[in-house]
Amino acid sequence: MIGYCIATYRCYDDKADFAKKAQSIAVGLTVGSWTELPEAKKAAMEKHLGKVISVDVHEPVNLVAGERYADIRIAYPDVNFSRDIPALLVTIFGKLSMDGKVKLIDIEVSPEFESAFPGPQFGMQGVRDLVGVHNRPLLMSIFKSVIGHDLTGLEEQFYRQALGGVDLVKDDEILFENPLTPLEKRVETCMRAARKAKETTGQELLYAVNLTGPTSQLNANARRAIAAGANALLFNVLAYGFDALHELSADPTIHVPIAAHPAMAGAFYPSPYYGISANVLLGKLMRLAGADLVLFPSPYGSVVMPKEENMAVRDALLDPTISLRTSFPVPSAGIHPGLVPLILRDFGSDVIVNAGGGVHGHPLGTEAGGQAFRQAISAALAGQPLREAAVQAGNEALKAAIDAWGVREA
Amino acid sequence: MIGYCIATYRCYDDKADFAKKAQSIAVGLTVGSWTELPEAKKAAMEKHLGKVISVDVHEPVNLVAGERYADIRIAYPDVNFSRDIPALLVTIFGKLSMDGKVKLIDIEVSPEFESAFPGPQFGMQGVRDLVGVHNRPLLMSIFKSVIGHDLTGLEEQFYRQALGGVDLVKDDEILFENPLTPLEKRVETCMRAARKAKETTGQELLYAVNLTGPTSQLNANARRAIAAGANALLFNVLAYGFDALHELSADPTIHVPIAAHPAMAGAFYPSPYYGISANVLLGKLMRLAGADLVLFPSPYGSVVMPKEENMAVRDALLDPTISLRTSFPVPSAGIHPGLVPLILRDFGSDVIVNAGGGVHGHPLGTEAGGQAFRQAISAALAGQPLREAAVQAGNEALKAAIDAWGVREA
Repeated sequence: MIGYCIATYRCYDDKADFAKKAQSIAVGLTVGSWTELPEAKKAAMEKHLGKVISVDVHEPVNLVAGERYADIRIAYPDVNFSRDIPALLVTIFGKLSMDGKVKLIDIEVSPEFESAFPGPQFGMQGVRDLVGVHNRPLLMSIFKSVIGHDLTGLEEQFYRQALGGVDLVKDDEILFENPLTPLEKRVETCMRAARKAKETTGQELLYAVNLTGPTSQLNANARRAIAAGANALLFNVLAYGFDALHELSADPTIHVPIAAHPAMAGAFYPSPYYGISANVLLGKLMRLAGADLVLFPSPYGSVVMPKEENMAVRDALLDPTISLRTSFPVPSAGIHPGLVPLILRDFGSDVIVNAGGGVHGHPLGTEAGGQAFRQAISAALAGQPLREAAVQAGNEALKAAIDAWGVREA
Repeated sequence: MIGYCIATYRCYDDKADFAKKAQSIAVGLTVGSWTELPEAKKAAMEKHLGKVISVDVHEPVNLVAGERYADIRIAYPDVNFSRDIPALLVTIFGKLSMDGKVKLIDIEVSPEFESAFPGPQFGMQGVRDLVGVHNRPLLMSIFKSVIGHDLTGLEEQFYRQALGGVDLVKDDEILFENPLTPLEKRVETCMRAARKAKETTGQELLYAVNLTGPTSQLNANARRAIAAGANALLFNVLAYGFDALHELSADPTIHVPIAAHPAMAGAFYPSPYYGISANVLLGKLMRLAGADLVLFPSPYGSVVMPKEENMAVRDALLDPTISLRTSFPVPSAGIHPGLVPLILRDFGSDVIVNAGGGVHGHPLGTEAGGQAFRQAISAALAGQPLREAAVQAGNEALKAAIDAWGVREA
């Protein structure tokens, strides 16, 4: 819709006149009042007035308290707000978020609004180009434990992960600036380990170092990390706001992929009645703000997100009708090699398989952990059952992983 | 607790071993693993290990699914994270927010952590000093509608509000940078109206102009507003993150009170199962980050927050055991003069009575709207029933307000 951003809300109420509620949102969050305006004023204010696009009431056959709801779509004129995510969110869900049981379940921004956002600098294709891998899902691993470890410990952990054939290694999101492993030293140390591993593996590797610190120093800290050799960044977007991510991704001097961590996302998306749904929070807004990779809880592992929500996040990150570059989906948490067939069934090759415990907890060690994933990915891509692949020569790491954690074939 | 920040979580689970869960949080969100560490390593890592302070299980007599929960308190070593709110939140509620039904219900930061925060620059006392009012609750009014209005319209609205005897006027939080009423022009226009009204009322008045724009420009925009004459700021904290507020309040060149708007807070606090409770979100963290005034939904009006939660927010903003300046509580939404006795019962004089429709919707106009509130405040402070005060000579504005909206005596 040209010149309007559309928000969809799910509103629960046992008795409400939802059509009336929709009208009050459209007026209340834009021009403030309407029916009492003189006609001449209405003509002048028309372009600022929100519009009710649809009101879709779900009326339970037998009313059970708390189960009656409506999906309400409201179009907000772009002219009412500046072209940034804080202005958009405050307009469509600032006051309204506190007005009863109401959840923001979708956003469609106008082409004009979107044009203010360069989006991901690399996107899925750009990240593939950097690591030189185009024919399979990528593999990312996470440091096992980092707090209290020194540079030597980190280097050793990094090297063993890299030897296993992973394409990316990410910092733990709870590793902040600290005297044991300060930002620049950490980058230098880990990139040295990456180069050393490459002598064996021949593989390019991205290291997403955790970008932290005062908001006003984020871009400068990113430049420091890059000057020290960082070739990717990890960022806790929701702790700083989407605009901070946008300002990183829109900065031409910060030309490395940014991986968005979902820390704190569970404060927003899980309730059916309140908050912001995952497809908006971790999908559309992350891509709009410029995340090249987006981590989110998978439906397979320990920290779960329902399958349907997961697929909605994936769709938002990859939607080909959006003109921005795509964001690489990274379903995370509780992933072991035996889950790879499920991940590929749901994501195809357009996914980064991401594991921490599933790499470091491997019975034969961290290196074998990475190898087991790579073997599982090869088998799953070939349509070969993992148990069958596991008994082939050269796939000992996969066999040990399956013996430890089992398999869930697609 | 020296050297530790303590988080309290309410975790719902019908079957969980909550003691075990608490232990897994304390270890998982700090050192990562513990029992399998060699003894020598344990000695080195001890200072990084989270500690379970208490696990208070609420075991329903007859188990109803979904009603069994535990309040779990975990102490996190300060040494694990930098002294900023993003680091604190990512540590205590980053990953954990996505791990089942878990709500962050309290935070107690260590004195060391708190020492990195100057807190409110003015606080309640400082704001009172600026307007020169120490013996009654303050009165704030909100523009009725602002979008689509030009400077002349805004000036007229501002003047009529000011004539009614309000102490503060705040922008609508959805008024962003726009060609009709750009920041500096808006400030100049409204402050001129304030000076003009002062000729009649003799009153000092704060105008909280809405601070918006790109994150990196917030402090510069604040300085522009101040240079144009602004004597207060309104800020949508949650759309930018608490650290952005901290960076404003800690900036010595931005020496005006900051009013924190709760826009988007409803995405966090209302669910019993998920998110962050209001006392933390709108209470402790707003004060820590330096809000001089904090707006939040009142339990009286249209946008409601349960009374108990409201009092918890108040307590967090005013808690005398915290060494930071207090933040002025501003319960908002749906307030009319007939609610003043309730507000004073719950907040005493330490409150800002804040109204939009309750001022502009007054049957005798905006000016009478402000007067009615001032008359209600005087009566309530004197312990006089409003209906009795309303029939006294000089209190015609109050009478008209009560005829329109009624009274709820305390």
